Amino acid sequence: MGPRGLIGPTGETGVKGQKGEPGETPDDSNQRVAFTVVRLSTSDASTSHYTRLPFQATETLLPGTSFDLETGTFTCGVPGTYVFMFSVCKYSSNYLRVYLRKNGDAVVSGQSTDSSHYEQVSGSAVVVLQRGDTMHLTMYGRAYSDSDHKTSFSGFLLYPE
Amino acid sequence: MGPRGLIGPTGETGVKGQKGEPGETPDDSNQRVAFTVVRLSTSDASTSHYTRLPFQATETLLPGTSFDLETGTFTCGVPGTYVFMFSVCKYSSNYLRVYLRKNGDAVVSGQSTDSSHYEQVSGSAVVVLQRGDTMHLTMYGRAYSDSDHKTSFSGFLLYPE
Amino acid sequence: MGPRGLIGPTGETGVKGQKGEPGETPDDSNQRVAFTVVRLSTSDASTSHYTRLPFQATETLLPGTSFDLETGTFTCGVPGTYVFMFSVCKYSSNYLRVYLRKNGDAVVSGQSTDSSHYEQVSGSAVVVLQRGDTMHLTMYGRAYSDSDHKTSFSGFLLYPE
Repeated sequence: MGPRGLIGPTGETGVKGQKGEPGETPDDSNQRVAFTVVRLSTSDASTSHYTRLPFQATETLLPGTSFDLETGTFTCGVPGTYVFMFSVCKYSSNYLRVYLRKNGDAVVSGQSTDSSHYEQVSGSAVVVLQRGDTMHLTMYGRAYSDSDHKTSFSGFLLYPE
Repeated sequence: MGPRGLIGPTGETGVKGQKGEPGETPDDSNQRVAFTVVRLSTSDASTSHYTRLPFQATETLLPGTSFDLETGTFTCGVPGTYVFMFSVCKYSSNYLRVYLRKNGDAVVSGQSTDSSHYEQVSGSAVVVLQRGDTMHLTMYGRAYSDSDHKTSFSGFLLYPE
Repeated sequence: MGPRGLIGPTGETGVKGQKGEPGETPDDSNQRVAFTVVRLSTSDASTSHYTRLPFQATETLLPGTSFDLETGTFTCGVPGTYVFMFSVCKYSSNYLRVYLRKNGDAVVSGQSTDSSHYEQVSGSAVVVLQRGDTMHLTMYGRAYSDSDHKTSFSGFLLYPE
């Protein structure tokens, strides 16, 4: 009997693997944070720069946004870059200083020392917050508001971390 | 004749598939809405809290943003969460109250009752709008502006619905 | 000896290649631009509408954001739609005009002519910027600030181009 035949040829290379899935489209639906709160009562006075300005109604409060009206405090649940804006009406017969505070420290502030007229004290800032950081306004002097919401505080998440 | 040769070896594993395409960047090009409009004339007076403050020029108006200068009215075309900001210069010899209104109702307002000086009345709010909702300013008193745009109204879409 | 046997059969096809990696999630981290800068010193006076208001500290400056404190100038590195906000405290014994300028031209401005009190002059605007465009504030009169940051300037990228 003759020798065994030669070994057969190598099989074909397997087919190329499937292309990977497309990357995920960012879903930011749980990363929406925004509020506008207002005061309704005509007067609130303070003789300390650290007295928190309470609020009495929410004009806008997106789901998941944490704002405590009684202490006027926003608590950060989604870390990121935020924008805050305030406009507080000074009571006519007093001066008014308003402070936007992060965890108690002044970020920006504003004032009017005209004790004869109603006037707005407005300000704003961009702030980077970690989870649990708080933002609130304090005031020194006397703030006015009414059913037309002459005193308001707004904030929103600009960029999630 | 000798026996048939052995079966050939298994082919090589196929090459790895290509990496998937990058995820899609959400296409928000039709979800960009923003404006800044200004007044140019020196005076506009009103004795009603419901008189709309007209504007006279656009500093910024993104394509698709609907703002009617004559009635000072923004109409929402893309539902979502919006931010509005205004700064209106009070005429020296009058008081001034300014209201930011959604479909006619005051969201926030501001005032200056100092009838001897020019002053700014500024405010802002975050508002959730449906398609067709309108935003405008009304004023009571007398507003001032000039070619340096001392009176302006801005808005932008923060989060599409 | 008989002839060699027949050649063996072809081996099996190799296994399919691995699936490719998923694509990358779009990264917008280089499209985040935001700042809040503040003044600390008590006084800065100017008798020209074109004097740039310098700043002295950054409250917030995201990586890649270009702001020159000495000239108070933001330079656009990422083209797109931006929002700018300012609040400048008027020195009690002077008037104050504040201008938000794009490449030197007034976008919006504000004033207080009450030369007896400290007051805030606040304003804001949405502006479309190309790479290299600059934004700064100029003032005419006298600005006040202090360690509580009564004078501030903020800006952020709303929509990259």
